[in-house]
Amino acid sequence: MKKQFIVIGLGRFGTSVTKKLVENGHEVLAVDKDEHLVQELANIATHALQADCSDESVLNELGVSNFSHAIVAIGDDIQSSILTTLLLKELKVPKVTAKAKNEMHGKVLQKIGADQVVYPERDMGIRLARQLSSDNLIDYIELSPDYNLVEILAPPTMNGKSLKQLDIRANFGCTIMAIKTGHKINVSPRAEDIIHTGDILLMIGSNQEILNLENEYE
Amino acid sequence: MKKQFIVIGLGRFGTSVTKKLVENGHEVLAVDKDEHLVQELANIATHALQADCSDESVLNELGVSNFSHAIVAIGDDIQSSILTTLLLKELKVPKVTAKAKNEMHGKVLQKIGADQVVYPERDMGIRLARQLSSDNLIDYIELSPDYNLVEILAPPTMNGKSLKQLDIRANFGCTIMAIKTGHKINVSPRAEDIIHTGDILLMIGSNQEILNLENEYE
Amino acid sequence: MKKQFIVIGLGRFGTSVTKKLVENGHEVLAVDKDEHLVQELANIATHALQADCSDESVLNELGVSNFSHAIVAIGDDIQSSILTTLLLKELKVPKVTAKAKNEMHGKVLQKIGADQVVYPERDMGIRLARQLSSDNLIDYIELSPDYNLVEILAPPTMNGKSLKQLDIRANFGCTIMAIKTGHKINVSPRAEDIIHTGDILLMIGSNQEILNLENEYE
Amino acid sequence: MKKQFIVIGLGRFGTSVTKKLVENGHEVLAVDKDEHLVQELANIATHALQADCSDESVLNELGVSNFSHAIVAIGDDIQSSILTTLLLKELKVPKVTAKAKNEMHGKVLQKIGADQVVYPERDMGIRLARQLSSDNLIDYIELSPDYNLVEILAPPTMNGKSLKQLDIRANFGCTIMAIKTGHKINVSPRAEDIIHTGDILLMIGSNQEILNLENEYE
Amino acid sequence: MKKQFIVIGLGRFGTSVTKKLVENGHEVLAVDKDEHLVQELANIATHALQADCSDESVLNELGVSNFSHAIVAIGDDIQSSILTTLLLKELKVPKVTAKAKNEMHGKVLQKIGADQVVYPERDMGIRLARQLSSDNLIDYIELSPDYNLVEILAPPTMNGKSLKQLDIRANFGCTIMAIKTGHKINVSPRAEDIIHTGDILLMIGSNQEILNLENEYE
Amino acid sequence: MKKQFIVIGLGRFGTSVTKKLVENGHEVLAVDKDEHLVQELANIATHALQADCSDESVLNELGVSNFSHAIVAIGDDIQSSILTTLLLKELKVPKVTAKAKNEMHGKVLQKIGADQVVYPERDMGIRLARQLSSDNLIDYIELSPDYNLVEILAPPTMNGKSLKQLDIRANFGCTIMAIKTGHKINVSPRAEDIIHTGDILLMIGSNQEILNLENEYE
Amino acid sequence: MKKQFIVIGLGRFGTSVTKKLVENGHEVLAVDKDEHLVQELANIATHALQADCSDESVLNELGVSNFSHAIVAIGDDIQSSILTTLLLKELKVPKVTAKAKNEMHGKVLQKIGADQVVYPERDMGIRLARQLSSDNLIDYIELSPDYNLVEILAPPTMNGKSLKQLDIRANFGCTIMAIKTGHKINVSPRAEDIIHTGDILLMIGSNQEILNLENEYE
Amino acid sequence: MKKQFIVIGLGRFGTSVTKKLVENGHEVLAVDKDEHLVQELANIATHALQADCSDESVLNELGVSNFSHAIVAIGDDIQSSILTTLLLKELKVPKVTAKAKNEMHGKVLQKIGADQVVYPERDMGIRLARQLSSDNLIDYIELSPDYNLVEILAPPTMNGKSLKQLDIRANFGCTIMAIKTGHKINVSPRAEDIIHTGDILLMIGSNQEILNLENEYE
Repeated sequence: MKKQFIVIGLGRFGTSVTKKLVENGHEVLAVDKDEHLVQELANIATHALQADCSDESVLNELGVSNFSHAIVAIGDDIQSSILTTLLLKELKVPKVTAKAKNEMHGKVLQKIGADQVVYPERDMGIRLARQLSSDNLIDYIELSPDYNLVEILAPPTMNGKSLKQLDIRANFGCTIMAIKTGHKINVSPRAEDIIHTGDILLMIGSNQEILNLENEYE
Repeated sequence: MKKQFIVIGLGRFGTSVTKKLVENGHEVLAVDKDEHLVQELANIATHALQADCSDESVLNELGVSNFSHAIVAIGDDIQSSILTTLLLKELKVPKVTAKAKNEMHGKVLQKIGADQVVYPERDMGIRLARQLSSDNLIDYIELSPDYNLVEILAPPTMNGKSLKQLDIRANFGCTIMAIKTGHKINVSPRAEDIIHTGDILLMIGSNQEILNLENEYE
Repeated sequence: MKKQFIVIGLGRFGTSVTKKLVENGHEVLAVDKDEHLVQELANIATHALQADCSDESVLNELGVSNFSHAIVAIGDDIQSSILTTLLLKELKVPKVTAKAKNEMHGKVLQKIGADQVVYPERDMGIRLARQLSSDNLIDYIELSPDYNLVEILAPPTMNGKSLKQLDIRANFGCTIMAIKTGHKINVSPRAEDIIHTGDILLMIGSNQEILNLENEYE
Repeated sequence: MKKQFIVIGLGRFGTSVTKKLVENGHEVLAVDKDEHLVQELANIATHALQADCSDESVLNELGVSNFSHAIVAIGDDIQSSILTTLLLKELKVPKVTAKAKNEMHGKVLQKIGADQVVYPERDMGIRLARQLSSDNLIDYIELSPDYNLVEILAPPTMNGKSLKQLDIRANFGCTIMAIKTGHKINVSPRAEDIIHTGDILLMIGSNQEILNLENEYE
Repeated sequence: MKKQFIVIGLGRFGTSVTKKLVENGHEVLAVDKDEHLVQELANIATHALQADCSDESVLNELGVSNFSHAIVAIGDDIQSSILTTLLLKELKVPKVTAKAKNEMHGKVLQKIGADQVVYPERDMGIRLARQLSSDNLIDYIELSPDYNLVEILAPPTMNGKSLKQLDIRANFGCTIMAIKTGHKINVSPRAEDIIHTGDILLMIGSNQEILNLENEYE
Repeated sequence: MKKQFIVIGLGRFGTSVTKKLVENGHEVLAVDKDEHLVQELANIATHALQADCSDESVLNELGVSNFSHAIVAIGDDIQSSILTTLLLKELKVPKVTAKAKNEMHGKVLQKIGADQVVYPERDMGIRLARQLSSDNLIDYIELSPDYNLVEILAPPTMNGKSLKQLDIRANFGCTIMAIKTGHKINVSPRAEDIIHTGDILLMIGSNQEILNLENEYE
Repeated sequence: MKKQFIVIGLGRFGTSVTKKLVENGHEVLAVDKDEHLVQELANIATHALQADCSDESVLNELGVSNFSHAIVAIGDDIQSSILTTLLLKELKVPKVTAKAKNEMHGKVLQKIGADQVVYPERDMGIRLARQLSSDNLIDYIELSPDYNLVEILAPPTMNGKSLKQLDIRANFGCTIMAIKTGHKINVSPRAEDIIHTGDILLMIGSNQEILNLENEYE
Repeated sequence: MKKQFIVIGLGRFGTSVTKKLVENGHEVLAVDKDEHLVQELANIATHALQADCSDESVLNELGVSNFSHAIVAIGDDIQSSILTTLLLKELKVPKVTAKAKNEMHGKVLQKIGADQVVYPERDMGIRLARQLSSDNLIDYIELSPDYNLVEILAPPTMNGKSLKQLDIRANFGCTIMAIKTGHKINVSPRAEDIIHTGDILLMIGSNQEILNLENEYE
């Protein structure tokens, strides 16, 4: 289903959001105070406009109430981010996602009505730290503070062993959900399936269970 | 296994990397030119120091060659990011991860020897756009450009139906790997298991398969 | 009854609030980021401190939760005004009065919890305009948008006339409440009392009634 | 009677003066050096112009001598405020009201001929402090340094009592001039009139008398 | 007779005034906000101090009321010049000489009480222009707008002629008061005295008379 | 005789030189880098142009070699003053007068060929100090470091005395050249002429002689 | 053979390279971000353009791949120098010579593909130091770190002596290759040739040999 | 012979001069206004000091008159370069070499007494352009505007040919002075000597002769 987004603030983050939304088939109006940044998105966004969105009359002219979702991706100017977010909610934009620089900023955004507050720098820092902490971790989904779905490179020490031999569930408590070998994904691995160096494992387990497994097969 | 990291640049991203690495049990030396930022991490990082890392003699004094991994998280100063990365590789730091502001910056970092280049703002922009594109998507792991593991909120229209009734594999081609109900995760769902509103589904499938499923149960 | 106030921001407005509160017998802690402004109030405020109140740990050290009332009189830095106000409410200060630069600023302050928002420049502008609009108006209290208590200089054309002769109630609808002659205030004027040039009248009436009276005796 | 005003300096204070004067039916020429501020008043002021009023030839072109009253509402630039005020008096503007930042500034303005000097930040600070000092005070007119007309919220402890019972004149020395109940104002209250919670009292008295009354009925 | 001066502002002009006054045997307290300028006069002025004289408490500490004469030689900061001059007069300094940048500045200085206003750049410009206008003029005293005492180099065409032969009084109306030959000054020249090339003449006359003489002997 | 001047630099000093030269009947081309300053002289100078005279091609276009005299009145930019002066001499302007900020600047100007170097601030400082040192001195011409022609107000103690009675030559060694009474100047005063309060005396004498006289008649 | 060069950065160094290349008959496109610098080369370079070469699309429009050689003469902006050099190599310019500010900068330039890195300030410093170290050295070519071809002024003590008499080869080990007398160069000097004061000698020898000779004939 | 130098200005050029002079055995006092630059040379120069050399008293304290040679290597600040050079000559430093930014600057330096003026950026630009103009040129000494001693790489087309076969003198007019093969230099090459690829030739000839030879053997 095609949606109408307005992205305000076209730094790296706003630009990236805009590009991906357009790739996914949505309509995006991209807006920034800086003419130069607007021109860089002229051929990418559905529409790109130079405007100062902390000014109520400007937002009215843009017809922001027609958009189903606004993303306030303003970078350094906290004041401008706050005023724009407030105006968008006053103008009845159904959903407003705002980027926060720090926790205080995030709290203000929530109090004045932002539906979603995101912290890109903080969150990417966490993701990188998670990857760096493990030699094998490729990606992960945090299912709960203590429980994750992880995508890890099969440790070389598992090479040639069958799931039965490894018996990971019994030994570590975590579960192998799928095995990726090259482009092929085995979504219902059987006990006799063999793991090879280079395979990628999708596992669900607690942090401790996965850490124990990593240490064992290091 | 405890590792030794040095994080250079203590903006939001570097701060977040530092905190998470320490949480994960690693030793982190956190460094920035700005005394104020250093003090904010004084009680969090293993060590926190004020220093200008684009100066070779400074890096030598810090003993950077004893660290197994350096993260160059310098924000706006591209020149400083480039010189620091070059120096770290010249001083034989085994792995250097550097944050890039844009593609040109990233290319220079690779040419001068960075082992890994990350683009936090761009990547978080992509993640947000993915979530915004779907009404139910919570998180995802990109297994290949076309194939994903997704964590989605079960659509209300599935409420009360068993996996057998839904027969998602046959109808859409994608596979439900696990069902999360509250804090409980069912990692080997059976055909008779019932989906309830509020459940979270972990599924593997192609972009198109998942899109079809979302549209059907919208 | 002696109260404990904290005044944050020691520009003209904050300084004036501080002085008057102390004159009225209250305890006031006066705080500003600028050491110079703090020193100017050192002998006036009960306590005067240099500190940055947009920093949570600073506010904690100041023990703000012990104050019954905080006045955020920060001048130009809207961001700092917002963050300080938010922190004060999070730290459970019972009443927070915040100065706003403009309506948008005022709305944000209200949304994040300010108990009272004041607009000194706007309100004094209104007061001055009111005085300039009339040749005789000295001061006024707005009882309702349309009804005022006004302090006006008796027009020379009233000189020597008794209240009975003027019969203002009958002719204009408004009421003379008191007559000030030099330092003496006559709070229950009688019909035979004579008005002299230089007397000051306290009257209650609608805007139109008072305007009519002014035009008649111009 | 319609008058011609010129307001120079369109910050918050000048803007507010301009709006109220126009509301009161006067003609106002609004002038500022900053084009942006001028445009914001374009639809409000009778005329709005961009000009630098510290330049004599500019003031001549504006025909300032045709105005009966000039308001110099220049904010931060003390030098510009002084030169403009001097020029206006040299060009024979009958009345010049100038805003002062501090006492020194105010003294210079008086010496060079300003007819009225106002201190908005200081005066509003005083008003706010007065209100904060009392739990019931809404507004007041200072009749003399020691004698005020106050508008106060009737204390709950007076609820249901008649004026006769309270006998305020005898007990405290101050006089109740009027009682406001909702939108109705009773300008000649009688001894048997009853006070209810939520009523607003207009009283004349000395500071001490009113303080005593407030303490008694606290 | 030794006098006590205070010179405020130690740019070129203030420095020069200070030096000459000290040379002439007076006591001078030299003051500037800039420590560096103060140090340059440390060995020249009787006392030299770093202080901001637009601050009343500073002027009181300096004991300015003990000086018989203050020179406000502040350069570019008109506001500071005005406030300092006002304060000096409020503190009862008998004579205050203030340097003005332009006519408007000069007028303000006079209105706020400066006893003497000087315009060094303007006046030296006039003196230079006078010298450049004539080929022979060395210096002059303006006795009235139209009447001058001039010091001119004797034109070569006068060489060898006696005063009698030249008969300047009769021919041009102006009077030769004295003739300077090398270091010797002849203050009562006689008719038979001869003028030689290189002599310097002191003459009194109107502008026109002296111009006629210059043209005649050119 | 009408001359052609070019004045470069239109601050207070250059403006004043230009005005006086034009008043004296000369042609003046006034030039500055700042368009605003140029416009202020548009109606005063013979020609006024905006140009950067530290650029050789600009000076050539202005045809500077046709002027008999150039005045470099550039204020603060020492580098620009030096380059302009050098260029003017290279382009064979017969006489170049340059304003110096300090002695070092003056030396450089002389070394690169300036025909005359002037120090307005320093020289006016000296003149003011001279006047302030005496209670009666109005103006003076320095005939030699030790010998002056002075214009002084006759001390009240001389009132009613004849030149014979005073016998100034015999008592002090200095000579009264002329006496100015109102608009009348007596250029050959006789022994019986009486001095009155308010008269102005023109005297020639050494510094010491004049000082002695001033002290005697103080 | 005529070549096509592009020179990016038109400070002193880039300007000088451009001029000399054009003098030598080559085609040069001169580019800078600063319009003013471009205009100064408009009549000298084959083409001169205002453009920002750290922007890939700009370089493409300039058709940089058609040039056989690019000189990156950007002055102070290290970041811009690095990005431009990288882009030029990515766009397949055969040879890129880049100017470095310091060794770190030079290393980065080499890593990202610069074919030649030059250090003008450093190298000219070395050349000047070499000349200053000797009283006679005019110029030199460094054939190896220890072996030079030098152009020296014949020391006065050699005046009138023949090469045979001096027997430099035997006494010092170095060889006189040629003798320049005025405009004439003797490229095969014979034993009986006489050296005169003012002659210039071209000699090959080690640093020590030449130093010995200089000391002997000092 | 050891000499005493003072180098003022420690940018790239001054640093390089200092290092080479010290390497050549001279004593060097290195001075800059910037403490940081001074520290970088602390271990290299004989002495390194932080001082502002455009201040006469500073130069006196440094005892500059004891140095036989001063190098003014001040970078961007033309005014400071001029004043320092003037002061050094006034203080009787025997030889002063000053670096000029452009021709105007150079002219002023000469007029005020600099013994030698150098233009590093311009001269290195010329040297680079000369090398880039030829495919074989390594270095050169300009003996006269039209006559050079060049060090060129032997063109591959000369490989295996004897000097006799090439007969360069007869065919082109220029002379081969020496042939360098690896580390060996043949300073009196004979007719039968063979040239090999990789040899370096030292030749004397006119620009045209050498160009003809290069084109022939290209």
